Amino acid sequence: MFPHIFRYEISPHIYVYLECAGVLYSKQSNFQKIEVVESIDFGKMLVLDGIINLTERDEFIYHEMLVHVPLFSHPDPVKVLIVGGGDGGTAREALKHKGIEIVQQVEIDGEVIDVSKKYFPSLGLALEDPKVGVFLMDAVQYMKEIKEKFDIILVDSTDPVIEQSGELFSLPFYKDCFNALTEQGILATQVGDSFFENNLVLDVFNNLKKVFPIVKIYCAPVPSYTLVPYSFAFCSKAIHPEKGLARLWRIGRDFQARYYNPRIHRAAFALPGYLKKEFED
Amino acid sequence: MFPHIFRYEISPHIYVYLECAGVLYSKQSNFQKIEVVESIDFGKMLVLDGIINLTERDEFIYHEMLVHVPLFSHPDPVKVLIVGGGDGGTAREALKHKGIEIVQQVEIDGEVIDVSKKYFPSLGLALEDPKVGVFLMDAVQYMKEIKEKFDIILVDSTDPVIEQSGELFSLPFYKDCFNALTEQGILATQVGDSFFENNLVLDVFNNLKKVFPIVKIYCAPVPSYTLVPYSFAFCSKAIHPEKGLARLWRIGRDFQARYYNPRIHRAAFALPGYLKKEFED
Repeated sequence: MFPHIFRYEISPHIYVYLECAGVLYSKQSNFQKIEVVESIDFGKMLVLDGIINLTERDEFIYHEMLVHVPLFSHPDPVKVLIVGGGDGGTAREALKHKGIEIVQQVEIDGEVIDVSKKYFPSLGLALEDPKVGVFLMDAVQYMKEIKEKFDIILVDSTDPVIEQSGELFSLPFYKDCFNALTEQGILATQVGDSFFENNLVLDVFNNLKKVFPIVKIYCAPVPSYTLVPYSFAFCSKAIHPEKGLARLWRIGRDFQARYYNPRIHRAAFALPGYLKKEFED
Repeated sequence: MFPHIFRYEISPHIYVYLECAGVLYSKQSNFQKIEVVESIDFGKMLVLDGIINLTERDEFIYHEMLVHVPLFSHPDPVKVLIVGGGDGGTAREALKHKGIEIVQQVEIDGEVIDVSKKYFPSLGLALEDPKVGVFLMDAVQYMKEIKEKFDIILVDSTDPVIEQSGELFSLPFYKDCFNALTEQGILATQVGDSFFENNLVLDVFNNLKKVFPIVKIYCAPVPSYTLVPYSFAFCSKAIHPEKGLARLWRIGRDFQARYYNPRIHRAAFALPGYLKKEFED
């Protein structure tokens, strides 16, 4: 019925097939193949090297959970660094916090930004906010050289299985991030699918544990990514993600979120029995 | 590479394909087509009329959450009624509660029980426990005629989209269930996928709200069912699923569960913003 099928792999023996109306954009940039695909049930999708980066239908879940969990855990975040995130969704969510003065974005691929502004303006246009600065460069290099300190670092990259993103999940990179955080600093990163790719998640978790005193895994379902709730890591020098939360309890009705709320914040850290042994102290 | 593909529908335009080693059993019973399929990543699967009923890999999540959430919410459950559940997984979990004296099962299709005992003995053999009684009959008819009262009713049927199961999600059936519950009685039922089939879930929820004073939706990810956490309904005459819970806090190390635990119990009731309006009072 529909002319195009987009197929993606959940595990080596499980695939999802999405019926699509067509491909709206397809181009090889200097770093990756960038596509915009119009799917029937997920709406427009940004696809990087064949992997869904975001869909119109469920990007809010991923972006809200990557951003608001660390930002509401911090008493007074002012400066945020976003690693990757060229689509602009992470910046859009960070800008909802009134105290934020600087959102520094380090994205390797400027073409992702251009495509997002055109095809996903509700995300991409956030990057035109005067509080947002964009460096087009390799984040690994940027973190090695940086002298500034940030309250929050959000790693919004492609998956660790992608070769060029591998370094963003490595020990040296996490050490550089640690050094670029203030004393109350928090890093949050996506870490993947803890059901079908548990070993990969465990590797990233163990790297993080070698650097940060506090590392907690939290989850949220992002239906276009995998069959189970997607895992994120909350990492900090001192702040615990479920204590304090004074700003969260004062959250006003003017704070617009479609997935995130105070109960979801805490519930996201409840790990099922089969993961507790691996991811709890 | 593998000889068999099992395909199932998540929504009208989204399909999942599972590579399988083969079909171990396939027979039309008087009520439905029963198949046992050996999948690579989910292990053996029980398939009824083409829909996955359970898989070896993730059935524990579904059964633990259908059973332990209501049972641990009740201060002293003694008599449990299971509607459907011919595979035995729900009975297996109910029997873990020491106070349980009677597990009354009403299953329409005896062949499901036979198949489960042979292919899924870790579930099916629970039905041979002396506390378990099995009536092979239509549960709708059974509920109309029943005089006994139960502390807990667990509706573990096929989906409401299946014609023969439709009545198990209807107002008259829920009224009969209400009448068969003690004053502290609780009913729990699976209600489906609140992301791709939200209208269906909402219809069931609204039927339940017409009968039970307390109706709360809770969720757990069952990866072989759909792309988002699967929804269940907790319905009771008086008990709130997040208050009291004295038995839960005394849960011992001898209580074996792989998904369920006290934090998961409460976290399962945290609804995302986009569902709160629909499913909260």
